Amino acid sequence: MDLPMDLSTVQAAASRIYVPGGCVKTPVHTSSLISAAAGVSAFFKCEHLQRTGSFKFRGAMSAVSEVALLGPETSAKGVVAQSSGNHGAAVSAAAEAFGLPCTVVVPSTTPAAKQDNVTRYGATLVLCEPTQKARVDAAAREAGRMGGAALVHPYNDDPVIAGQGTIGLELMEQVPGLDAILVPVSGGGMITGIALAAKGLDPGVRVIAVEPEGKRLQEALETGRRVVDEGTGGRMLDTICDAIRTQPLGPRAWELNLEKKLLHPEVLSISDDEVRAAMCLTMSELKQSVEPAGAIALAGLLSPAFRELRAREESGGRPIRKVAVVICGGNADLGVVAGHIQKHQEAAGKGS
Amino acid sequence: MDLPMDLSTVQAAASRIYVPGGCVKTPVHTSSLISAAAGVSAFFKCEHLQRTGSFKFRGAMSAVSEVALLGPETSAKGVVAQSSGNHGAAVSAAAEAFGLPCTVVVPSTTPAAKQDNVTRYGATLVLCEPTQKARVDAAAREAGRMGGAALVHPYNDDPVIAGQGTIGLELMEQVPGLDAILVPVSGGGMITGIALAAKGLDPGVRVIAVEPEGKRLQEALETGRRVVDEGTGGRMLDTICDAIRTQPLGPRAWELNLEKKLLHPEVLSISDDEVRAAMCLTMSELKQSVEPAGAIALAGLLSPAFRELRAREESGGRPIRKVAVVICGGNADLGVVAGHIQKHQEAAGKGS
Ligand SMILES: Cc1ncc(COP(=O)(O)O)c(C=O)c1O
Ligand SMILES: Cc1ncc(COP(=O)(O)O)c(C=O)c1O
Repeated sequence: MDLPMDLSTVQAAASRIYVPGGCVKTPVHTSSLISAAAGVSAFFKCEHLQRTGSFKFRGAMSAVSEVALLGPETSAKGVVAQSSGNHGAAVSAAAEAFGLPCTVVVPSTTPAAKQDNVTRYGATLVLCEPTQKARVDAAAREAGRMGGAALVHPYNDDPVIAGQGTIGLELMEQVPGLDAILVPVSGGGMITGIALAAKGLDPGVRVIAVEPEGKRLQEALETGRRVVDEGTGGRMLDTICDAIRTQPLGPRAWELNLEKKLLHPEVLSISDDEVRAAMCLTMSELKQSVEPAGAIALAGLLSPAFRELRAREESGGRPIRKVAVVICGGNADLGVVAGHIQKHQEAAGKGS
Repeated sequence: MDLPMDLSTVQAAASRIYVPGGCVKTPVHTSSLISAAAGVSAFFKCEHLQRTGSFKFRGAMSAVSEVALLGPETSAKGVVAQSSGNHGAAVSAAAEAFGLPCTVVVPSTTPAAKQDNVTRYGATLVLCEPTQKARVDAAAREAGRMGGAALVHPYNDDPVIAGQGTIGLELMEQVPGLDAILVPVSGGGMITGIALAAKGLDPGVRVIAVEPEGKRLQEALETGRRVVDEGTGGRMLDTICDAIRTQPLGPRAWELNLEKKLLHPEVLSISDDEVRAAMCLTMSELKQSVEPAGAIALAGLLSPAFRELRAREESGGRPIRKVAVVICGGNADLGVVAGHIQKHQEAAGKGS
């Protein structure tokens, strides 16, 4: 866990993930209407079009490929993940791509559609009680049962962080002269990987976190305390963005950020209403169907806080003109999406 | 209207539409899950990602560029369209791209969001009574008022048909060895253009119409009568696919089809429930947000009728293995989309 992490680590991950059945280079979409509304040229990185429907497949491919490289004996033991969401599907598909056995532990309360997302790639599903302790215990037990399978953590793991960073490599190539990248953040694996890659290629590019309200990441960065509130630190955030409810940044993301000053000091905090509006705009203008977390960076782009941030940067040095917005995932329950559309339209007094 | 229409006409249209502010070459998406379910390799042509949100922009660019080519005097008179939907937005944007004045006549009952879709490209909006006669009269009056502006018909017009045909040119290049193309049909401009291009390049490719139930196009083709039922011929079809409610094929599409045997004799007829299911699958698997007509060709792909058609062709000669599915548009009212999701989920007894 403490080998050096930098641009070259991300490049090494990139050399492993674009294999048959593996990652695709996702497209970048634009919308003149959204760019005009935002006052910048906006570039949408379509990670919901990554295999398995989220960027999580990059980190999973990176981590599972490292296990596969350890040789047939280690490979045969397989991999284990615990997640009811995007990470579980991603690790299943990555294991399938490399031909490794895979078990995914999910809480017994996980909806059938999400369970199918794991089993469709051939992984073994293990149900457990819906508590954090039961999940960790079950994952360890399964790994043992498989003879010592490798546990793939969703974000607190160098190969995973390096894999997510390939988004940054692609973006810097696809959009020359990028000034800023807006990245949804939960445990922080994605934003840390992207920043390692992007700032490695251009130290002047800003990597700006977009969080659901209540995460208080800016306060954490200002005070230097990873967990700002021990009381809430362990709890899940109260947000419609079900994929990004972890309150504190993970330890490894935190450490790398302290060491390399990766994140922009200002964080964009987004309300549920703003996420709903951004989901609707993603559908009506970009014609893309996304999960709530997939729309939060667009909400950040359009937020008053980002306008102010840009004004401040403008007066300093390099202005913010070209902005990438990471659409991180598209695995939504459509019934929930329908509810968000309706709630947004009521709030907006109809209109689309 | 009676110049020869063939592959070269479509190629000529292609030489005019890919200009700045003009058409983009739309991507082709795939889904291993959908291909497996359909039993063929499916390729989704993303016309909802065309500028203005539908393929209609191709025909509009083709027609408006011809007007522009007639010189400054004719150009200055501008263009007129009558449509509350995709055609109106498409002609507005095409006129903007070539710097021509444009008026679009829409029924006074058109929702505000659809009116905005026309005015955002700078066209003048003229409201009229919501009857067919009032629309035609108003369009003629506006054209006169503009000093003899060119009327751009949505489908019964050679430059429009040729422009839509560029979908076929792109597809044949993007998917080598295509065996069939499934195309939503209303007035028939799109399917006729696509067939001229695709069959011009490979006479063996099948171009198969997908219609909302009640259109009775197969019966028309079998009996040789364009309007199968004079009683219903003038009426609009009762379907949730609001963009494709015209009952008979347009005269020009009919004539070209008789002359060149463009359409496959079998037509896939799709119910509203099948369209809703296909809309949901387009969102959950392809992560694309589409209007109802945009999902009907996918419904055709998955229909029992297509399975039977394939079995019959299999026993004949060249089997159907590679199939393109045209996603023709994405301009949906999101509130309506939410209703379709809910209705589909109720029918499916929940699930996604
Ligand atoms: C769709 C989506 N977006 C964002 C995130 C956050 O990623 P990270 O935990 O690396 O910050 C996740 C994590 O599961 C996710 O699934
Ligand atoms: C989204 C969409 N699909 C299909 C069609 C049908 O096209 P055509 O009338 O050329 O058959 C239309 C026509 O307006 C449309 O807007």
